[in-house]
Amino acid sequence: MATSTSPKVLRVAVVGVGLVGSEFIRQLLAFPSPSPFRLVALTSSTATVFNPDGLALADGDLKQQLVGSPVRLKPDLPFLLRELAALVRPGQDAVLVDNTASEEVARHYPLFLRAGVHVVTPNKKAFSVELGLYERILAASLESGARFLNEATVGAGLPVISTLKDLVATGDKVRKIEGVFSGTMSYIFNEYSTGKAEGPSFSSVVATAREKGYTEPHPADDLNGADVARKLTILSRCLPALRGALPEGYKSVSTHSLVPPELAGVTSGDEFITRLPEFDARFEEMRAEAAREGKVLRFAGVVDVEQGVIKADLEKYSVTHPFATALGGSDNIIMFYTERYGARPLVVQGAGAGAAVTAMGVMSDLLKLV
Amino acid sequence: MATSTSPKVLRVAVVGVGLVGSEFIRQLLAFPSPSPFRLVALTSSTATVFNPDGLALADGDLKQQLVGSPVRLKPDLPFLLRELAALVRPGQDAVLVDNTASEEVARHYPLFLRAGVHVVTPNKKAFSVELGLYERILAASLESGARFLNEATVGAGLPVISTLKDLVATGDKVRKIEGVFSGTMSYIFNEYSTGKAEGPSFSSVVATAREKGYTEPHPADDLNGADVARKLTILSRCLPALRGALPEGYKSVSTHSLVPPELAGVTSGDEFITRLPEFDARFEEMRAEAAREGKVLRFAGVVDVEQGVIKADLEKYSVTHPFATALGGSDNIIMFYTERYGARPLVVQGAGAGAAVTAMGVMSDLLKLV
Ligand SMILES: NC(=O)c1ccc[n+]([C@@H]2O[C@H](COP(=O)([O-])OP(=O)(O)OC[C@H]3O[C@@H](n4cnc5c(N)ncnc54)[C@H](OP(=O)(O)O)[C@@H]3O)[C@@H](O)[C@H]2O)c1
Ligand SMILES: NC(=O)c1ccc[n+]([C@@H]2O[C@H](COP(=O)([O-])OP(=O)(O)OC[C@H]3O[C@@H](n4cnc5c(N)ncnc54)[C@H](OP(=O)(O)O)[C@@H]3O)[C@@H](O)[C@H]2O)c1
Repeated sequence: MATSTSPKVLRVAVVGVGLVGSEFIRQLLAFPSPSPFRLVALTSSTATVFNPDGLALADGDLKQQLVGSPVRLKPDLPFLLRELAALVRPGQDAVLVDNTASEEVARHYPLFLRAGVHVVTPNKKAFSVELGLYERILAASLESGARFLNEATVGAGLPVISTLKDLVATGDKVRKIEGVFSGTMSYIFNEYSTGKAEGPSFSSVVATAREKGYTEPHPADDLNGADVARKLTILSRCLPALRGALPEGYKSVSTHSLVPPELAGVTSGDEFITRLPEFDARFEEMRAEAAREGKVLRFAGVVDVEQGVIKADLEKYSVTHPFATALGGSDNIIMFYTERYGARPLVVQGAGAGAAVTAMGVMSDLLKLV
Repeated sequence: MATSTSPKVLRVAVVGVGLVGSEFIRQLLAFPSPSPFRLVALTSSTATVFNPDGLALADGDLKQQLVGSPVRLKPDLPFLLRELAALVRPGQDAVLVDNTASEEVARHYPLFLRAGVHVVTPNKKAFSVELGLYERILAASLESGARFLNEATVGAGLPVISTLKDLVATGDKVRKIEGVFSGTMSYIFNEYSTGKAEGPSFSSVVATAREKGYTEPHPADDLNGADVARKLTILSRCLPALRGALPEGYKSVSTHSLVPPELAGVTSGDEFITRLPEFDARFEEMRAEAAREGKVLRFAGVVDVEQGVIKADLEKYSVTHPFATALGGSDNIIMFYTERYGARPLVVQGAGAGAAVTAMGVMSDLLKLV
């Protein structure tokens, strides 16, 4: 017999019941029976329900059920940690699924991991802040054997991190990773820069993106490039040669913010959108210059292992480059240049955001645990 | 503790020491220590060496060492099966890695799986012949818990099968898979059809491909489309809706062979190449027609779940389609159209052949077992 006779049970504690969290739970509960998964805890920013034998949930709004539950507790990570740790034994694993964007939750990962509780998450925080947290996560995971999986942090449901890990683990040498990592930036520049000198104004494209729900409530949170810098940090840390390259995480990435310095202090998204037209001329100029060179503008992320360069910047690409020809909508595209793949990269492309595909990335990590 | 305290040992028996097999063993032996893998058997078409404690291999030509070994045996799958089965116990797994293209070896998989021995392979045979063998493989795997993994059968090292399995397992609905699945066909048509009416002759492109080692010794083995039909069979069988759609495997796929009927009986590759120019006009006509429509020719594979169509055929694609703009060299490209990915597909692209990337696909499967 290759595996133990009684199938493994994986107890799942979900923290964060927003867009991704709710969709993730739907996918989890829809898993064909006999399901190895048992949902034992649900935590929002205001309440927790916990039952080691499994929660009984009805269809419909989960946050509603959570907040309305008569047995709810206050959210309490140390409590969750104690309870989950007590449930881990041979053939009975437990996993914390963090569907928040909270740095506070992320800082608890080493404790869960050390207690033998796996951690699965689309939350970029833990791997993209200072190196110390990343190292504590690795050490805790190594110590207990509990695993840390974060496929959905880059490219959502696209196989990006798993592909990179496979390249590294099988001994390929990654030379460069280049991609469009932000669905928002992808949408904005696919609309804004098509190779022609003329086109819609930058501010109008950003305003439309915001109306369609493609940007954060405050568009500066996308335009500042920090999200791309976080993803580059996560990828760089998968590469042995760059493991220590970014001591302060995403803050160490060379990032070109597209937020006009004059608007840096504007805290209201609405005001930001109202004032953005004042700066359209700057973007027009860049678009026209690119067009003169037969190029388009794309906000790209680059991890150049050989040059030791990790940067997020507005770059020009030929109108025949895949970043110009193959992208559409809010696609992500990621190109891996490696020794084995030689001159032509391994490419992964597709929607890099959205609750359904992000939850799928989380769920695919969960499947690796059973 | 999430996992057992003493790390799992995986005993690896390799059958087939050709291009992929040799490279695979190099990658296996280069795995950083402490390696969970122990290479216990090596089998070519003429000899076997076996040692349950691990083989001692020197650098250099493996087939040489195998054939020159004083302790070699005749290749004997039932012997290997008995020995491997006897080594399987909790924390001690065994895996058969089949790096041949042999159907005979493939027909043994159910026996290995039933005995609790995992099977990992780039050999397309087992999953692409009649449905019965596929079903016996599934049943044996289910019975013992031993796993069958064949990532490298489609797209070599590209994450194709794992991505498809993740889509299915997390509850996405796959509507269509469309791709260029043969590196040889990709090279031939990337060179032959670029959207212009004129260009090199078909026979000259095939002859060059053969000289570069991109085709089988007999180019008809690529041009007949069977390799693509086999890959489509493997993918279709990953989809619940199409599990039983191809009772005779690749023979049930609607396949358009590019071998001129007049050359069907030509058994010598050299003679085939000498006579192919007689048929250049047919291909010219198709190329010119495509060019008039603003299209290129590509030999594509399609699995259309909604229409129930599974076909390998020479198709026309607009010069702005990724099959025209993004492909180069002998790239594969695979597009997954699904419910979650909506109008824009999830795309995987890159070299789909070559010993190093194929061995990497095999190795990445092996990593899933530890
Ligand atoms: N949406 C995407 O397309 C996408 C793609 C890739 C990655 N991600 C990542 O996925 C994560 C979730 O994204 P989302 O779109 O689902 O965001 P969201 O809708 O804002 O949901 C986040 C949820 O986390 C909860 N939360 C915050 N702090 C918490 C705490 N300390 N304890 C418990 N719950 C807490 C919030 O609860 P309350 O409502 O109670 O405040 C909120 O419902 C983020 O890290 C995001 O970066 C998202
Ligand atoms: N090469 C690629 O790019 C690629 C890509 C994807 C998938 N694959 C697949 O990978 C597999 C290996 O390909 P390859 O390129 O390595 O082919 P190869 O160089 O021809 O190697 C195949 C080896 O299998 C051995 N063999 C045949 N029958 C055997 C048997 N019954 N018992 C033991 N050994 C046997 C042969 O041994 P002898 O030399 O002793 O006859 C030969 O060395 C094939 O299934 C192929 O379709 C290859």
